[in-house]
Amino acid sequence: MEPILLYDTTLRDGTQGENISFSAEEKLKIALRLDDIGIHYIEGGWPGSNPKDLQFFELARRHPFKHARLAAFGCTRKPGRRPEEDHHLKALLGSGAAAAAVFGKSWDLHVTRVIETDLEENLAMIRDTVGFLRQNGREVVYDAEHFFDGFRRNRDYALATVAAAAEAGADVIVLCDTNGGTLPFDIGPVFAEVRGRLGSVRLGIHTHNDCGLAVANSLAAVAAGAVMVHGTVNGYGERCGNADLTAIAPLLCLKMGRPCMSADNLKKLKSLSRFVGETANVVPMHSRPFVGRSAFAHKGGVHVSAIMKTPAAYEHMDPELVGNQRRVLVSDLSGKSNVEYKARELGIELAGDGIDSRRIVSEIKQLELGGYQFDVADGSFKVLIEKLTDNFQPLFELESFRVTIEKDREQPCQAHATVKIRVGGKSEITAAEGYGPVSALDNALRKALGRFFPDLDTMRLSDFKVRVIDGSRGTAARVRVLIDSRDQDHIWSTIGVSEDIIEASWQALADSFQYKLAREKALRSARQEPLPLKMA
Amino acid sequence: MEPILLYDTTLRDGTQGENISFSAEEKLKIALRLDDIGIHYIEGGWPGSNPKDLQFFELARRHPFKHARLAAFGCTRKPGRRPEEDHHLKALLGSGAAAAAVFGKSWDLHVTRVIETDLEENLAMIRDTVGFLRQNGREVVYDAEHFFDGFRRNRDYALATVAAAAEAGADVIVLCDTNGGTLPFDIGPVFAEVRGRLGSVRLGIHTHNDCGLAVANSLAAVAAGAVMVHGTVNGYGERCGNADLTAIAPLLCLKMGRPCMSADNLKKLKSLSRFVGETANVVPMHSRPFVGRSAFAHKGGVHVSAIMKTPAAYEHMDPELVGNQRRVLVSDLSGKSNVEYKARELGIELAGDGIDSRRIVSEIKQLELGGYQFDVADGSFKVLIEKLTDNFQPLFELESFRVTIEKDREQPCQAHATVKIRVGGKSEITAAEGYGPVSALDNALRKALGRFFPDLDTMRLSDFKVRVIDGSRGTAARVRVLIDSRDQDHIWSTIGVSEDIIEASWQALADSFQYKLAREKALRSARQEPLPLKMA
Repeated sequence: MEPILLYDTTLRDGTQGENISFSAEEKLKIALRLDDIGIHYIEGGWPGSNPKDLQFFELARRHPFKHARLAAFGCTRKPGRRPEEDHHLKALLGSGAAAAAVFGKSWDLHVTRVIETDLEENLAMIRDTVGFLRQNGREVVYDAEHFFDGFRRNRDYALATVAAAAEAGADVIVLCDTNGGTLPFDIGPVFAEVRGRLGSVRLGIHTHNDCGLAVANSLAAVAAGAVMVHGTVNGYGERCGNADLTAIAPLLCLKMGRPCMSADNLKKLKSLSRFVGETANVVPMHSRPFVGRSAFAHKGGVHVSAIMKTPAAYEHMDPELVGNQRRVLVSDLSGKSNVEYKARELGIELAGDGIDSRRIVSEIKQLELGGYQFDVADGSFKVLIEKLTDNFQPLFELESFRVTIEKDREQPCQAHATVKIRVGGKSEITAAEGYGPVSALDNALRKALGRFFPDLDTMRLSDFKVRVIDGSRGTAARVRVLIDSRDQDHIWSTIGVSEDIIEASWQALADSFQYKLAREKALRSARQEPLPLKMA
Repeated sequence: MEPILLYDTTLRDGTQGENISFSAEEKLKIALRLDDIGIHYIEGGWPGSNPKDLQFFELARRHPFKHARLAAFGCTRKPGRRPEEDHHLKALLGSGAAAAAVFGKSWDLHVTRVIETDLEENLAMIRDTVGFLRQNGREVVYDAEHFFDGFRRNRDYALATVAAAAEAGADVIVLCDTNGGTLPFDIGPVFAEVRGRLGSVRLGIHTHNDCGLAVANSLAAVAAGAVMVHGTVNGYGERCGNADLTAIAPLLCLKMGRPCMSADNLKKLKSLSRFVGETANVVPMHSRPFVGRSAFAHKGGVHVSAIMKTPAAYEHMDPELVGNQRRVLVSDLSGKSNVEYKARELGIELAGDGIDSRRIVSEIKQLELGGYQFDVADGSFKVLIEKLTDNFQPLFELESFRVTIEKDREQPCQAHATVKIRVGGKSEITAAEGYGPVSALDNALRKALGRFFPDLDTMRLSDFKVRVIDGSRGTAARVRVLIDSRDQDHIWSTIGVSEDIIEASWQALADSFQYKLAREKALRSARQEPLPLKMA
């Protein structure tokens, strides 16, 4: 069987997504990653349409790809104009891209109502454009825009448009479900008719996700003979997005026996997904198939005890094949086995002597009933397990804190905190300000602890989340605070729950510092260094 | 053709999703919305597995549904135990739910490796469990867990398990793609074999989205004869989630001619999606098919000019059919008409003399860039428009406030607030405590205003939401506070944004009180009553 070609349009159709936008330099970085992972075609932009895309093609000329072909996007010539006079087509040639992707109209409604020309002229536009680009040595990918809609309304005309492109020498004819309204059942029959009309020309598929079916429609097209699949990383794109290549590549390779990416490259998929998401500065979708953080996360106790016996029990594939990993979450749905599994990951053996792991599970369930959620707070979970097994050695103790917030008329709020702690036999009181009460507390605690522990310099709070658990009680509702912290080589999360947002924040803050200090202590003791109690 | 039954498991399988968790009260609220929109079955939880679910079933008994049937979830009896002795089965009966959904093993690997019994005993467990529940008058929905995986590995045994359930009287046999690894092509042939073996029993489908194919697989099952579809609102669920009912309902009704929800109810889909997302406090997925904020948003210039000629050019359906709306993201002009439209809804005419609505639009855009979101805060939007058009008449002014939070050792935090305000020419200072700083502020402000305005007695804060906008800056991140308030006959929302959570809360609180007082004043002036300034 012919191999499948992956055609990425993250840099063009992907940027039609709400909130998705890349600079020319960012586009280049993404293109280099796409090349590295073995994508066959990279559509860089529409050089005739905007200066940023022009700039990208200039940059790309100086950074040739290892494997991928670069494609530039454009449309058929304007009605009544010769191709060589058409600004968009000149820009396509000028871009230096080896492949030209041009879209033309397949749907009579678009011909007469949108570009407002007649049906014959549209056929001529397609023929002329494809022919002109071929004469100029470009590989031509012809995008039959709205093909499925056009086919439903005026089958003969839709077929005539792709026949025009094929006769003019298009290398690949791509059937586009531009509005995303087509069902998988309709794909096969349409491909069969096109194949019947066009003979052996190579066909491709370009789908949108308006019905949540972009991936399914792409697979249906491959099953029906398509040899090129268009899509974007993470499915970014206008409205509900394009077909997600991070799902299509593993599906074709691992489930359909239609290889399109090497096993080594598949292992880079998760990191490609993250990289593009970070570059776009979009909140990652944890539930994204194959590459999301939750894609192989297990929460239910029944599931966890089963995967401990055999991972296939609740995993449709080995997560490492796409560079992802299994995660076990601890929550009110979980049983003894989640807790034991998780504790073992943290280096604590619960099955040991005298420890009643059933009691521990029931305490955790009680806390979760009250709003704690340990599946997202590994740091607090460790501190809690230590407390429940009498292994907790507090590295500091709170004597007291005071936080004051003041506001005068239109002036912004001012927050101050004083914190008094005890470390070993010594106590320390400090004060600090901050962006708000929690920030002031963080600063004061850090300052107080800094007198005893120098390692804290490398620790940062990197994320802060607040959720009201029981909103219907207004400002008397309980809130859950989640804090992510990091140092040079480690990330951990801690949690606090209270009706008082400051109390909840304090719990999460205190756990985070306890966790960090305990970790430093363990590392030092592994290296046999003494704990540097500055004031000891 | 037989109508399709929608079976919602948001409250059970949905809560397996990472970060998805509901209190019993929240579950009830969601269940009532699901009932209202015409979902046929609502799976409330697993009463034998955790106390929160038990609590939900108790609540649900006091709030009977209008149309929906309530289902309780559980598993087949334990190996070697009689059904009447099985704790889980007793809990199913005790829940009071009319339907019992029980899952049993279809895959021989699970029988021998996970529950560690023999293949014959598993068949007996299925038969006994279904029979016992039927004898006790329950409608039985039998979930054939891992049916597709089992069928691939040991077809005869998988078929024997569903035959056992059917013979014991199961009302519906649901084929589950538990691991989410099945492709749409495989669904039809498997259904055909099951139909051949079981005859006329009703079949259902339960899919997971690990391959991004949950919706496609559900549609394929309906095409192959399934009459019940399991799924969750927004596709929430373990790993990559379950089949998304907010896509499946419109697809079946509008695209496949298999009605399962009335046209009036379909129009509530978007608001159901929002409600469940807000209750879970999960960041909404804008690109979600049908119901997402971007699902009908147009960005590209070519597309926008085309849909202005004919919306079908780039829309696969009318967004209003699912309660959504078209959004145009590009032009300043459209922003202006949006704002004018929204202002008109609130009774403010912006097109009037001397008002520069372009400037207002640009101020609003600046604020939204900074994190405000006025589409969810009508109260603050009204106050803002009044300020921008010099129509704002503050009914009170803040002189100052002070909030103090104190904590000593293990004692809970204590919060106090003093608030000084000015109303007319008079000022008033009060103090109050609260569950936390915001609650203390709310109480103190309410007490101060109460001296002047008696109408405040009927006003309550009914919801309080906090979201960190820019998490990566730790406790210096900006937070957005949303407050919902209500009185006897009205609900309004207000917003505040700041790096300081107390400042943000104050903005939302102050707007809420201003809004309420202005509304009372307008109502009184319509009735020609004087404003009852108690101390006037």
